[in-house]
Amino acid sequence: MTDSQETLLQKIQEQGDLVRKLKAAKESSEKVKTVQSFYGNLEEINKHLSQFSYLSGHMPSKVDIETHNKLDCNVHFQNYPHLKRWWYHMRSFSDSERSLFPESYHLNCMVKNYNANNKSVDQQIKEEVSKLLALKAQLGSEDAAPQKFVLKTAKGTRDYNPQQMTIRNNVLQKIITVFKRHGAECIDTPVFELKEVLTGKYGEDSKLIYDLKDQGGEILSLRYDLTVPLARYLAMNKINTLKRYHIAKVYRRDNPAMTRGRYREFYQCDFDIAGQYDLMVPDAECLKVVTEILDALDIGKYVLKVNHRRLLDGMFEACGVSADMFRSTCSTIDKLDKSTWDEVRTEMINEKGVTPDAADRIGEYVRLNGSIELADKLLQDEKLSKSKGAVEGLEGIKLLLNYCELLGIKDKILFDLSLARGLDYYTGVIYEAVLTQPIKIGNEDQTIGSIAGGGRYDNLVGMFDSKNKQVPCVGVSIGVERVFSVLEAKLAAGDISVRTSDVDVYVASAQKNFLDERMKICAELWNAGIKTEQSYKKNPKMLNQLQHCEENGIPLAVILGESELKRGLVKIRNISTRQEEEVPRENLVQELKSKIELLDIKEMNGPLAK
Amino acid sequence: MTDSQETLLQKIQEQGDLVRKLKAAKESSEKVKTVQSFYGNLEEINKHLSQFSYLSGHMPSKVDIETHNKLDCNVHFQNYPHLKRWWYHMRSFSDSERSLFPESYHLNCMVKNYNANNKSVDQQIKEEVSKLLALKAQLGSEDAAPQKFVLKTAKGTRDYNPQQMTIRNNVLQKIITVFKRHGAECIDTPVFELKEVLTGKYGEDSKLIYDLKDQGGEILSLRYDLTVPLARYLAMNKINTLKRYHIAKVYRRDNPAMTRGRYREFYQCDFDIAGQYDLMVPDAECLKVVTEILDALDIGKYVLKVNHRRLLDGMFEACGVSADMFRSTCSTIDKLDKSTWDEVRTEMINEKGVTPDAADRIGEYVRLNGSIELADKLLQDEKLSKSKGAVEGLEGIKLLLNYCELLGIKDKILFDLSLARGLDYYTGVIYEAVLTQPIKIGNEDQTIGSIAGGGRYDNLVGMFDSKNKQVPCVGVSIGVERVFSVLEAKLAAGDISVRTSDVDVYVASAQKNFLDERMKICAELWNAGIKTEQSYKKNPKMLNQLQHCEENGIPLAVILGESELKRGLVKIRNISTRQEEEVPRENLVQELKSKIELLDIKEMNGPLAK
Repeated sequence: MTDSQETLLQKIQEQGDLVRKLKAAKESSEKVKTVQSFYGNLEEINKHLSQFSYLSGHMPSKVDIETHNKLDCNVHFQNYPHLKRWWYHMRSFSDSERSLFPESYHLNCMVKNYNANNKSVDQQIKEEVSKLLALKAQLGSEDAAPQKFVLKTAKGTRDYNPQQMTIRNNVLQKIITVFKRHGAECIDTPVFELKEVLTGKYGEDSKLIYDLKDQGGEILSLRYDLTVPLARYLAMNKINTLKRYHIAKVYRRDNPAMTRGRYREFYQCDFDIAGQYDLMVPDAECLKVVTEILDALDIGKYVLKVNHRRLLDGMFEACGVSADMFRSTCSTIDKLDKSTWDEVRTEMINEKGVTPDAADRIGEYVRLNGSIELADKLLQDEKLSKSKGAVEGLEGIKLLLNYCELLGIKDKILFDLSLARGLDYYTGVIYEAVLTQPIKIGNEDQTIGSIAGGGRYDNLVGMFDSKNKQVPCVGVSIGVERVFSVLEAKLAAGDISVRTSDVDVYVASAQKNFLDERMKICAELWNAGIKTEQSYKKNPKMLNQLQHCEENGIPLAVILGESELKRGLVKIRNISTRQEEEVPRENLVQELKSKIELLDIKEMNGPLAK
Repeated sequence: MTDSQETLLQKIQEQGDLVRKLKAAKESSEKVKTVQSFYGNLEEINKHLSQFSYLSGHMPSKVDIETHNKLDCNVHFQNYPHLKRWWYHMRSFSDSERSLFPESYHLNCMVKNYNANNKSVDQQIKEEVSKLLALKAQLGSEDAAPQKFVLKTAKGTRDYNPQQMTIRNNVLQKIITVFKRHGAECIDTPVFELKEVLTGKYGEDSKLIYDLKDQGGEILSLRYDLTVPLARYLAMNKINTLKRYHIAKVYRRDNPAMTRGRYREFYQCDFDIAGQYDLMVPDAECLKVVTEILDALDIGKYVLKVNHRRLLDGMFEACGVSADMFRSTCSTIDKLDKSTWDEVRTEMINEKGVTPDAADRIGEYVRLNGSIELADKLLQDEKLSKSKGAVEGLEGIKLLLNYCELLGIKDKILFDLSLARGLDYYTGVIYEAVLTQPIKIGNEDQTIGSIAGGGRYDNLVGMFDSKNKQVPCVGVSIGVERVFSVLEAKLAAGDISVRTSDVDVYVASAQKNFLDERMKICAELWNAGIKTEQSYKKNPKMLNQLQHCEENGIPLAVILGESELKRGLVKIRNISTRQEEEVPRENLVQELKSKIELLDIKEMNGPLAK
C-alpha cells in the first residue's frame, strides 16, 4: 500500500467517525421524540419504563409526577409490570420530596434540542456523508462502483500469510526448543482478563489497554502482557513454584510503527521462574536462556545489559532524590537508549522536579558500565556505600556476574547503570538484550536494538493475594516481532527463501479421465502418511501440474498414464532433475518412502541446511 | 468450586455492577457541577470547549449565547484556541437562528438533577457497597480480611495449566500433521476485526459477538469464527486459490457449558480450500481430512453425516414453503439433533409460520438417511424431481459419495436429510462428524456428539469484494475443545497420564557447596542440547532432588560428589532402576547422550507408547 493511500484511508476513517457520531446523536434525539409522543399509551409507557430502573441511577423528575397524576389509578396494572413498579415507586414520595424533584430529566431537554435542530442535523449528516463518499471514490478511482467499506485489518494489526507463518513457526520452534531444554512447562491464559486484574500494574502505560465494550456482565480488557496474567494465575491457583513459558499475542493501543516491527497486536514469548529460591540462581538461568535463544536465531552479535532496581533506587537516594520520585526518575532514565543525556537531564529537572545538582550527580553514574570490577569499585563509592539499597543491588550484581561466568556467558554481559526498564513492577535485577551491529538486509543495514528484556518482580503475585502472600518471580520476554520483521525483510530482499508447505509427492496424470485413479492413489499415500497433493480439476494440463510442483518445491511427482497402468506400472518423476522412473504400482508407497528418506538426508547435509 | 459459591459469585457480580452504575451516574453528575462553576474563567472555558466540537453533534443553546454575550470581545484569543473557535462559531449565527436555540443543553439539566439528588445518591451508593461487602464476606468466610476482588478468569474462559497444555499441544500436533499431509499452508489473522467485517454474516448469532469499547478510533469486534476472517483475507489480498489451515481462538458470548467443553473463548482448527475447481473434488478431500484426524485422535467410532443446502431448499420448495422462509426453516431443522421431530414441527408451525401440511411433508423427508441408493431413490421422487435445486443437490451428493468411495471412506459417510447446520453462509454440501458411541471415562460413559463440521460457502468472499467477485470455498472445522474435555476427563479419572516437561537429566549433588560445579555442568549439557534441570537452591537436600526427578518423570540424574570429582568421575543414576554408574567427567555429555537415545527407543517400543 502506498503512503498516500494510507493517508487517504486515515482521512476516510476520520470522516467515517464523524458521520457515525452525527448519526448517533440524531438517533438518540429521535428516541427521545418517541418518548414525548407516547404519554397517552399505557403499553408504550410500560415498555419505556422497562428500560429505566429508578433504583440504579435514574432520577425521578417533575415529568414523572405529571405523568403519574395524569394516569388513571384504576389501570389494570397486572398487564404492565414496569408501569406498576414505577407507579408504586412514584406514589412512595411525599409531597415535600416531590417538590425537590428537578423540572425534567435530560431526555426532555434533548427533545427540545431535537425539535429545534433536527433539520440541520439531517442536512449536516448528508453533507458529511457526501464528503466521505468523495474520499472513498478517490481511493477506488479506477473503480466506478463505490466500495461497500474499506477492506482492511484493524489499525496496527496484520494478517500473517503462509510465508510469514512459516518464518514465525520456525522462529518460535527454535525458542520453544530452548525453553524446553531448561525444563519449562507451557501454560496459556485467556486473551481478556477482568479489567480489575490489569488495573494499577502498568503505571503510565495503562492508557494503552484495550477495553471490551460493556455488553452487560463483566468489565473486561485485552491482556497487555503475559506477566500480569501469570501473576494472577499463580495467586488464583495458589501455586508457589513454576517454571513456565507462554507464547501468545498481547494488545497495546500504542501508535504503531509497523515497518519497525511494532504492532498493536503482537507476540510475546515469555519464560519465567516463580519460587522462593537462592539469590540470583534463577536470574542467571534466565540470562543463559536469552543467550541460547539469540545464538539459535543467529541474527547477529548482541550484548546483555544488566542492572538492579535496588541499585538504581540507592543511586537516586545517594544523589538526593526523594523516595516518592524514584519511579518517575527511573522512567526518565529509561529513555537514555533513545535520547541524549542532556535531553534526559532536562526532562528530569523540568518535568520530574529533580534538582539540577541531583541530576548532574545521577549523570555521573549512568554513564558508567563495565563488569564485576565496576561493581567492586562502586561498593567503595563514598555516597553509594552509605545506601543500603545500593549495596544490596551491587552485591546482587556481583553474584549474578559470578554465576554468568560459571554458565560461560560472561563475555556477553554488560553491567550498565543506564539500564532502567519502563515497567513499574520490577524489584531486583533487570536486563535487556541489544543487538550491537546493524543487520544486513539486501544492500541496506537495519538497526533493531532491543530484542529481549526482563527482570525480577517479587511483589506482583502478592498484589492478587488476599493475604498479600508473595511469590518471587524472575523472567524474560523475547521480542519476536522484531525478529520476524528482520526475517521478513530478508525474505523480501531475496536473502532467504521459505517453503510454505511440506508436500513431498504430487499425483499427476498426463491424460484425461484419470481423476478416479488419482484419488485412489492419493488416499493410499495419505493413509501411508505421505504428504501428497493433486489437482482439484478433473482434467488438469500436464504443464500446469508440473509447474505447481516447481513453484511449491514439491520434489516428487507420480505420473499416471494409460499404457503404464495397463502394464501395472506408474512413473515417479524427480522434479528438479527431471529424471523419470517406472515402478510397479503395488510398490509405489515403498518406493516413494525410500526416495523421500533419501531427499531428507540430502537436504539435511546439503546447502539448504539451516 | 461448589455450586453455591458460583451463585454467590454471580450475586457479587450483579451487586458490583449496580454499585458501578451508581458511581458512574454520580461521577457524571459531578463533572457537570464543575461545568457550572467555571463560567467566569477563560482558561477553564477553553479547556471545557476543547472537548466539545459543535461540528460533530453538539448543539449550541441559549446558554452558549448567554456566555458569548458575557465575554469581553477584547479577550486575547491566541491563548485560548478552543474558546476562539467556539466564539467565532457563535458569532456566525444570526439573531433569528439564535432565537431557535433550545434553552439549554442536557448537561445543564443534569446539574439541577445533581443538586437535588446528590445526597440521596451518596446514601444509595453507601448502602449498595455495604451489601456488596457483605456478599464478599460470605464468600471468604474462613478468611477474616476482605479480598481485594474476586480472583477469577472472565466468565466462560479458563486458563490452561501445563497438563492441559500438553494434552492440547499433542492433539493439535496430530491435527496439524494431517493438515500438512494434505499440503495446507498456515495463516493467521488478528483476534479482532473491524465490526463491519463481521456484520451480517452470522444471522441470529450476531448478538453473541464480543465488541471492543469505542476508545476513539475504529469500531472493533473479536472474531466469531475463522471463516469470515479467511473470506476477508482472500478478498482483501485478491487471492483466488488457497488451501490453508488456521488454528486459533474465537469468541462467542454464549451461555457457557464448560463441563461439556463449551466456552466463550475456544479453539477452532479450520481447514479450507478456496478456488474455482471441479464439482465435489475439494469437498471430498475435506471429508477425507476429517476421517484422518478422527482416526489419529482415536477417540471412538464416528459417522460423517452429509447433506446439501440446495437439496434442503429444494425440499422446502417441494413441501410448499416460500423462498423467504428457507433460512429460518433450515435453522429449525438444525435443532433435530437435540429435539424430537414433534418439538421441531411445533416450532416450525408456531414460530416460523410453516403450514402444518408443509411441516408434515418436511417431516417425511428429514427422517430419511442412507447412502447413494437413497440419493437415487430421491431423484425419482415425484415432488423433489420437479425442483431444480433438489436435483442439483442430489446429483452433488451422488458425486460426493462416489468420490468418498474412491477415497476409501464410504463406510464412514451417511447421507442424512435432517442435517441442516446453523450458519447462514453455506451454499452447497454440508457435513458434520458425530461420535456414535459414548466415551468411557473412569467408570462413566460420556456422550459428546458433534466433533467436526463444515461445508461449502461460495458467496462469502464476494460479500467483501467491491465487484462482488466470488471465490468458491469449502472447509471444515474440528471441535477440538470437546476432544480436550474428553482427554482432560480421562486424565482426571486416571485413565491416561501426561508428562508436562521433557527434561532428560537432573544435575544433583549429595554434598554442600556444589552450586558452582552444578552450574558449570548444566551449562555444558545445555550447550550440548541436552534437556537439563537443577535445583535453584544453593544446598538442596538429596532426597528432595531425587523426589523432583520421580515426580517429573526425569529419567536420569547426574550426581556430584567430592570423592568422585577428585578422581575425575561423576555418577549417573537411572531414576527408575536406581542403578548408578561412575563415568569420567570429560565423557559425561557423550555418556548421557547414548543413555537418552536408548531410553527414547525403549519408550517408543514400550508400554508407554501411544
